[in-house]
Amino acid sequence: MSFRIEKDTMGEVQVPADVYWGAQTQRSIQNFPIAQDINKMPKEIIKAFAYLKKAAAITNSEAGVLSGEKSALIGKVCDEILEGKLDDQFPLVVWQTGSGTQSNMNTNEVIAYRGHVLTGGALTDKEKALHPNDDVNKSQSSNDTFPTAMHIAAYKILQEVTIPGIIKLRDTLSAKAKEFKNVVKIGRTHFMDATPLTLGQEFSGYVSQLDHGLRAIRNTLPHLAELALGGTAVGTGINTPAGYSENVARHIAALTGLPFVTAENKFEALAAHDAIVEAHGALKTVAVSLMKIGNDIRMLSSGPRSGIGEIFIPDNEPGSSIMPGKVNPTQCEAMTMVAAQVLGNDVAINIGGATGHFELNVFKPMMAYNFLHSARLIGDVTISFNDKCAIGIQPLYDNIEKHVNNSLMLVTALNTKIGYYKAAEIAQTAHKNGSTLKETAVALGYVTPEEFDKWVIPGDMVGEINL
Amino acid sequence: MSFRIEKDTMGEVQVPADVYWGAQTQRSIQNFPIAQDINKMPKEIIKAFAYLKKAAAITNSEAGVLSGEKSALIGKVCDEILEGKLDDQFPLVVWQTGSGTQSNMNTNEVIAYRGHVLTGGALTDKEKALHPNDDVNKSQSSNDTFPTAMHIAAYKILQEVTIPGIIKLRDTLSAKAKEFKNVVKIGRTHFMDATPLTLGQEFSGYVSQLDHGLRAIRNTLPHLAELALGGTAVGTGINTPAGYSENVARHIAALTGLPFVTAENKFEALAAHDAIVEAHGALKTVAVSLMKIGNDIRMLSSGPRSGIGEIFIPDNEPGSSIMPGKVNPTQCEAMTMVAAQVLGNDVAINIGGATGHFELNVFKPMMAYNFLHSARLIGDVTISFNDKCAIGIQPLYDNIEKHVNNSLMLVTALNTKIGYYKAAEIAQTAHKNGSTLKETAVALGYVTPEEFDKWVIPGDMVGEINL
Amino acid sequence: MSFRIEKDTMGEVQVPADVYWGAQTQRSIQNFPIAQDINKMPKEIIKAFAYLKKAAAITNSEAGVLSGEKSALIGKVCDEILEGKLDDQFPLVVWQTGSGTQSNMNTNEVIAYRGHVLTGGALTDKEKALHPNDDVNKSQSSNDTFPTAMHIAAYKILQEVTIPGIIKLRDTLSAKAKEFKNVVKIGRTHFMDATPLTLGQEFSGYVSQLDHGLRAIRNTLPHLAELALGGTAVGTGINTPAGYSENVARHIAALTGLPFVTAENKFEALAAHDAIVEAHGALKTVAVSLMKIGNDIRMLSSGPRSGIGEIFIPDNEPGSSIMPGKVNPTQCEAMTMVAAQVLGNDVAINIGGATGHFELNVFKPMMAYNFLHSARLIGDVTISFNDKCAIGIQPLYDNIEKHVNNSLMLVTALNTKIGYYKAAEIAQTAHKNGSTLKETAVALGYVTPEEFDKWVIPGDMVGEINL
Amino acid sequence: MSFRIEKDTMGEVQVPADVYWGAQTQRSIQNFPIAQDINKMPKEIIKAFAYLKKAAAITNSEAGVLSGEKSALIGKVCDEILEGKLDDQFPLVVWQTGSGTQSNMNTNEVIAYRGHVLTGGALTDKEKALHPNDDVNKSQSSNDTFPTAMHIAAYKILQEVTIPGIIKLRDTLSAKAKEFKNVVKIGRTHFMDATPLTLGQEFSGYVSQLDHGLRAIRNTLPHLAELALGGTAVGTGINTPAGYSENVARHIAALTGLPFVTAENKFEALAAHDAIVEAHGALKTVAVSLMKIGNDIRMLSSGPRSGIGEIFIPDNEPGSSIMPGKVNPTQCEAMTMVAAQVLGNDVAINIGGATGHFELNVFKPMMAYNFLHSARLIGDVTISFNDKCAIGIQPLYDNIEKHVNNSLMLVTALNTKIGYYKAAEIAQTAHKNGSTLKETAVALGYVTPEEFDKWVIPGDMVGEINL
Repeated sequence: MSFRIEKDTMGEVQVPADVYWGAQTQRSIQNFPIAQDINKMPKEIIKAFAYLKKAAAITNSEAGVLSGEKSALIGKVCDEILEGKLDDQFPLVVWQTGSGTQSNMNTNEVIAYRGHVLTGGALTDKEKALHPNDDVNKSQSSNDTFPTAMHIAAYKILQEVTIPGIIKLRDTLSAKAKEFKNVVKIGRTHFMDATPLTLGQEFSGYVSQLDHGLRAIRNTLPHLAELALGGTAVGTGINTPAGYSENVARHIAALTGLPFVTAENKFEALAAHDAIVEAHGALKTVAVSLMKIGNDIRMLSSGPRSGIGEIFIPDNEPGSSIMPGKVNPTQCEAMTMVAAQVLGNDVAINIGGATGHFELNVFKPMMAYNFLHSARLIGDVTISFNDKCAIGIQPLYDNIEKHVNNSLMLVTALNTKIGYYKAAEIAQTAHKNGSTLKETAVALGYVTPEEFDKWVIPGDMVGEINL
Repeated sequence: MSFRIEKDTMGEVQVPADVYWGAQTQRSIQNFPIAQDINKMPKEIIKAFAYLKKAAAITNSEAGVLSGEKSALIGKVCDEILEGKLDDQFPLVVWQTGSGTQSNMNTNEVIAYRGHVLTGGALTDKEKALHPNDDVNKSQSSNDTFPTAMHIAAYKILQEVTIPGIIKLRDTLSAKAKEFKNVVKIGRTHFMDATPLTLGQEFSGYVSQLDHGLRAIRNTLPHLAELALGGTAVGTGINTPAGYSENVARHIAALTGLPFVTAENKFEALAAHDAIVEAHGALKTVAVSLMKIGNDIRMLSSGPRSGIGEIFIPDNEPGSSIMPGKVNPTQCEAMTMVAAQVLGNDVAINIGGATGHFELNVFKPMMAYNFLHSARLIGDVTISFNDKCAIGIQPLYDNIEKHVNNSLMLVTALNTKIGYYKAAEIAQTAHKNGSTLKETAVALGYVTPEEFDKWVIPGDMVGEINL
Repeated sequence: MSFRIEKDTMGEVQVPADVYWGAQTQRSIQNFPIAQDINKMPKEIIKAFAYLKKAAAITNSEAGVLSGEKSALIGKVCDEILEGKLDDQFPLVVWQTGSGTQSNMNTNEVIAYRGHVLTGGALTDKEKALHPNDDVNKSQSSNDTFPTAMHIAAYKILQEVTIPGIIKLRDTLSAKAKEFKNVVKIGRTHFMDATPLTLGQEFSGYVSQLDHGLRAIRNTLPHLAELALGGTAVGTGINTPAGYSENVARHIAALTGLPFVTAENKFEALAAHDAIVEAHGALKTVAVSLMKIGNDIRMLSSGPRSGIGEIFIPDNEPGSSIMPGKVNPTQCEAMTMVAAQVLGNDVAINIGGATGHFELNVFKPMMAYNFLHSARLIGDVTISFNDKCAIGIQPLYDNIEKHVNNSLMLVTALNTKIGYYKAAEIAQTAHKNGSTLKETAVALGYVTPEEFDKWVIPGDMVGEINL
Repeated sequence: MSFRIEKDTMGEVQVPADVYWGAQTQRSIQNFPIAQDINKMPKEIIKAFAYLKKAAAITNSEAGVLSGEKSALIGKVCDEILEGKLDDQFPLVVWQTGSGTQSNMNTNEVIAYRGHVLTGGALTDKEKALHPNDDVNKSQSSNDTFPTAMHIAAYKILQEVTIPGIIKLRDTLSAKAKEFKNVVKIGRTHFMDATPLTLGQEFSGYVSQLDHGLRAIRNTLPHLAELALGGTAVGTGINTPAGYSENVARHIAALTGLPFVTAENKFEALAAHDAIVEAHGALKTVAVSLMKIGNDIRMLSSGPRSGIGEIFIPDNEPGSSIMPGKVNPTQCEAMTMVAAQVLGNDVAINIGGATGHFELNVFKPMMAYNFLHSARLIGDVTISFNDKCAIGIQPLYDNIEKHVNNSLMLVTALNTKIGYYKAAEIAQTAHKNGSTLKETAVALGYVTPEEFDKWVIPGDMVGEINL
């Protein structure tokens, strides 16, 4: 490999001849050989940097502290980053400085040097069209750019991946709830036989969980919409022109189409990432919902012959390398594994969020990594679970009927007729003798056969159905 | 001890002669000898049950399924419970059935038997004025009462303990922010010297964290305001009169003065406790904030002679059993220990919330216990930290001045005058030589002494102060 | 209430006239009004202090720095504490200073003042027979006594509560495994029908989990056996006589009957509590095992008519306040709730353990509280689950037979005869047609009826049984 | 792209023409479009599969159920996998079926088809030299191979990456402890000035933490050494030849050079992954240690002028994009971020481990992913922290001396001469007056100047130094 020499304030560094990055990026590669093959800085963060660098350049130009040419040149490279043309120019990992300074500088260097090349210059030119610090990073610090990139990336992925995924699954489950609204089945509490409900009612609970989860996520968006940019080094906004914070937030909002505003308090915005903690609190709530739904579906579909077996789910692949013909609820498994991962990521985020000191939290890349991981996983797995499992769910009527009709808990319908204690005696006697409720109830003399048939009707025990 | 005999559907049980509870409570004492001295069912749950039992009795009476006398009698005992007169009648522990059935029955039994005694009856009477199941529990199930009690207790403690505590601390910190708004001090990023800000600005970050935390908690209240009551056994509302759900929620709202409504979906309300998971997600966010604030305050007050020592905090107690005269930031320690506890409780709640099956989540008492623990701890510790620490915080001007004037990062003010690279050279040279910024800057020929004095003024580097 | 005046180095304090505690305890009551009704310092810590104070007095006396009379007097009060006679003299909460200094001083004060009273003195005497700091706390600091108390309490509870509880359950499950070793039943993987095993084999997996869990706990005991005592203020052992560390550890070992030794490194022993973190890592492993076991038992016993229903578990209490005759797996629920709690406690402990600074970790009481909570809960719940559930488990042969004979996965026995692909075709065809394996296999022409009967025998598919 | 047709028991699938994988791998790609760019199945798992497939082939051949030619051919492809030649043939993600079945089949297919090509065959041949199920997977199931791969991968990475990393850092810190053993400095408890110790003593605490952490990890290796292989579908070992379990474990041990043995209980080995939970419990203990060490180092090196500044750490990169000349403790930041990640991963593993049902835990890939992530991160970051930070640590003598000499806590040396209360009076008076301890002690008349100089010598307060 051939190299060129780059310099920063600490001296010279050898850099591969043809890359756009410079000395500081190269130092970071060398200083942090930590999980380099698996934990690159998430691409969503890089794109968020492109938005904010472009917005900062426009704002700086409007404020008269950066020339229009430089601003346009910066914007041009940012567009290339957003189009994915420079993906291989961002080699740094999550496990670097906790402020993400080196990823900020990686972006500054790539924009400056690629910009220079776009003007016809060479990477080896001493003087370049753009300076990483004095031009690209103008009116900025790592300390306010990185948290700004975190919020942009987090808000965008929630809007573009997570929320749409949840909605898609929610809508399918809602359609199923309506479709199954009159399928009377046994209820189960404590995993034990209980009074009946309809399969549609059961599914409506999942829909309600996801509806509340979506509201929970959306409740956290206003805090995520607050951008640190303009706080610069410690939150005071040193070295920024007047009106910069509001203007740069406005430009980011315009570029992304999302309602970003400047943070009410820049000191919080640098020193703490409670917005990330709070928003991930909503994601973990959804993870909890998905774990419940995934478990229920796999248990309801269990069998095919010796389980509960009340619903059919699609067969997507051979389930076993040794048991021929086996089919498994693999989408449920992927979804519940994702749920467990999100609950773990939540703890990493909490610890990072809690451990900032003074004017800066230095767990930024780790927090961003975990947040984006969770948001992505939930978004992807809800789509996968939806497409490969939920849309194909069908009732298995034979088992459903057998289970509900067998249930001793139908006796509950008699509570208001003969009292809880006598009803209990019926159920206990039937259980002990292996007899039916009806024959036991009549034998005990508590009801006539006609009364039993009139009072104990599963379909009458499911209440009003509003789905 | 003397005993009397009580009965339930499984047979006879010996119960201490003078207690109001009955057979099912006694069985639970005997069946769950688990941490009985330290983990009683939280008293907030017991009181919440009193509210809901009274409201259910009123609603049942209005619906014509319970006599006015019985309703009034139930209400009378509920009032005694709310006044704390029957505290010793609730001996059960958290670690019982996961539906909290036995705590529901404990309440039913105490209300029925105490009610009977209030009418002049004896505990040993065969027939009693109220029946635990058929009267007190009418139109109810453990499966809808316990989650209703969870929401009532959770909402109330947030409103009465947690939020007021946070607000009190927030207001004190806000007053301090204003008081210290012009105290220029060194900033610290990465725990390293950085550009200056004011002590008031630093504190304003804490205020902003708590303001956002309060909003986060309040965002979760609407989900907590939804009550499961009326869902009965599995969510279908079996054995409830028409309009029961809405009416009972209205009565609970009236009795508690809180905006409770009936849950949109009762199947979710029994089978999942995402509202608790979500609301505790807000509490963990506040815990993260408190950890940051507690750590900052203890570090800022460290010393008194060999630490950072920029603020004074009150001396509340001798700090050491061996080091005479030592004073420690003990309120910070209590607060950060609470924060750690809340972050642990969060995980317990997540796991409980994720592990419901079919129509019922059976981690209810554990979830309630952890939620109420966190809410109480945050409420109590913010008051304690406020009263014994925050209100007494004062700047230590000597150290503050010394630190800010020493800082090499004042050089940042020169970036926009001479560029980042020359400014860096000044700082690095001064650091190497142990010289001042000014003498180094002048010696390097980058500025005149007059320029330095004009450009490098800490008080000019803190931006606009809006506190 | 009447009061007396007590003094410490900060001045006078009013103390209830008849309590044995003094000024510092009283200050702590007033300074930390945090969850005082529910979070007293665990009694195990108080008892551990009694052991160490007695051992320190003996050691000091032997070293000639404390008179024999004083040592004996201290020992006498410690014995009273161990007998539980002074339980009401320890009013402090967990949420105090993070070093536990005030609980150390509480102990010092109670020993000094109760000791004085034992000599015939009055609590209001100016001069007392023992001085809390100069006598009772001699050669000690809070910083080494509190972690010593943590290790004593942790080791003792593991030995006396946790391990015996796990062993009891393990032994019952092992007996059940042997009892059920020939009960052939269907296996379930992915919650789906799989090849058979015996019920005894299934239970043997639980036994193996608990055996490994016990080993995991025992592996952590050597680190817990290391005592900080002798490190005093910062680990250097300032103000201790020669040989003190080794001798005091020896005396604690003798008094407790447990193999305590002085810590290899006192700086670690004060500044970090990795031993607690590590040992709780073993407890969380057991919690994971208990969650699996509790879930399996509740699922295997589900029904009674519309679930899996392969085992009977004892009916301990009426299961529902609305569904008559319902019985639930309540012991499983208590056990799985405990498991969730332990997994939450683990996170609190991790955060506390990670957040020590320099020479002292100040999350000590919180860590002790969570550790002792988990250890107690596991010990209690394994006994409860054992006594009220595990010992009564019986197979439900009818369901077991029906399930295993229905299973399509018996086809696996044909893999080695006709190959995986043809076997799969048989299972898939039988599933599609609702036919038996045998009729399908023969109809497809892959085996004769005789071959099928010879090759597909559930009891031959369970391998060697070594239980 | 051109395709070929592959078949499995569910039918035909289009597969890219030139890949070695087959139908089941392809189905999985299509069925699980979840984080495919970032969460490939860890390469350590793939290599572990290569070891076990080769060992199984040898064992099968020795048992006479597989020909020597087939066994050799399988072994040849496994060697290619181990050499990394087939890395691009394993496209599946973590978020697939929870048994890892499809990664097992991916391996089976690649081995079978690559093996066939090695014999001169074409990928489009109908009949191939090896069959994925009947040959490569012979005597195996996904249910026992995947957990075997987990244990092989986990044990190997601990031995090859994690433990060596920790040892390297431990040895450097130990060398530093010896080097600094006589550098007397102030101690800090509660972040407050305390009695002195030496810098070497302080570092020795870190060494002791890592020594205990290494022991904790090693304690968990025997459980990890147990292999599930031979349990096949549900633990019974169906379709395995006699002696298979012991023999295949022996061959894996020989191939890897690690002390693997067959698991004592195969039912546990498939249905639970407590070994992973337990071993990660040791990793989280090390994470807790690293958080403490990383925090201490960054705080000790803070400044350079307005912090604690008692040690120098190497300057590796410019620390700020806006503050010229700033240097930050970036290696500490990477290390503490890793610690937070590991603590989060621990929770994901716990939840996965707790949620197995009946004969199979289906959170396997998620658990493997988190375990390997943590093990890798700790191994990498300890090396990075060691090489770029720890080895360059040097005392900053000026600050060290200033801090220790200023400390009021030197008064502790007077406890045994004049008692705790008078010593406290000296410290408090000096603090109030801003005077030195000596002048105050003399002015109060408690000691003569000569006595003070004789008794209060920091270097005499650090105890015995055994490093």
